[in-house]
Amino acid sequence: MENELKFRIATINDLDRIVAMLADDVLGSKRERYEQPLPDSYINAFNAINSDPNNELIVACEGDEVVGVQQITFTPYITHQGGWRATIEGVRTLSSVRGKGVGTELIKWGIHRAKERGCHLVQLTTDKKREDALRFYERLGFVATHEGLKMKL
Amino acid sequence: MENELKFRIATINDLDRIVAMLADDVLGSKRERYEQPLPDSYINAFNAINSDPNNELIVACEGDEVVGVQQITFTPYITHQGGWRATIEGVRTLSSVRGKGVGTELIKWGIHRAKERGCHLVQLTTDKKREDALRFYERLGFVATHEGLKMKL
Repeated sequence: MENELKFRIATINDLDRIVAMLADDVLGSKRERYEQPLPDSYINAFNAINSDPNNELIVACEGDEVVGVQQITFTPYITHQGGWRATIEGVRTLSSVRGKGVGTELIKWGIHRAKERGCHLVQLTTDKKREDALRFYERLGFVATHEGLKMKL
Repeated sequence: MENELKFRIATINDLDRIVAMLADDVLGSKRERYEQPLPDSYINAFNAINSDPNNELIVACEGDEVVGVQQITFTPYITHQGGWRATIEGVRTLSSVRGKGVGTELIKWGIHRAKERGCHLVQLTTDKKREDALRFYERLGFVATHEGLKMKL
């Protein structure tokens, strides 16, 4: 990295930049609506996340610029002797910084945060169409032990 | 089903039965501790789930008997235009009722509940070692589009 990355909880002022990153993606471009003003559904979701102590929307910043995002959900389960898990979702980096290690630092920060919250496991799913993503996560130490099943409602 | 199944939010009085079901499982037997009294970690997890409006621990009952369990987590995300998802975890049925469709009814109830909560997607991961489970979920309409990655902390 040329500049040091800083990580923090996203504020409502970051939302425009976050949605822009989500929309600038092979799969995201088909399902997001990056418009001005932002659709209310994004603002409602931000408020729901921001008011929930078990959800954290995290941005990676280079100086004042938001260059990456991820959401971490902390969930208490009865399984594994009542263990908490961290689930990482919605990981994206700004296209102009790709290949510079922002994604790696983002996930490492998420793993650190999961430990800090006392989780015994950190988990995520990645679309089988994203072949590079699977290798990226495996390099970071994740193991693809599970099938990730989805059903659209 | 011989008797009608009823579904409800679990209470602390169901916890012993739930942990017994989790421990009576090929993978669960290695990681749970079904003892009397129950380890505090289970009780703490139950209380954390029970006090969180975005987590529901659901039991299936035949008369007064608990015969199945699942946990549903409702999560707001920025992705998919700020859509909510339901994640199903910790699905188990009493060994004496297996093959009688309790699991199917349990998951169908979970899908119904996810719709009721306004989710656009219901998701779960299943261990690749549970070959029957993958087919079970696919029959119910889930699609294994994703890899499920885990990292123990």
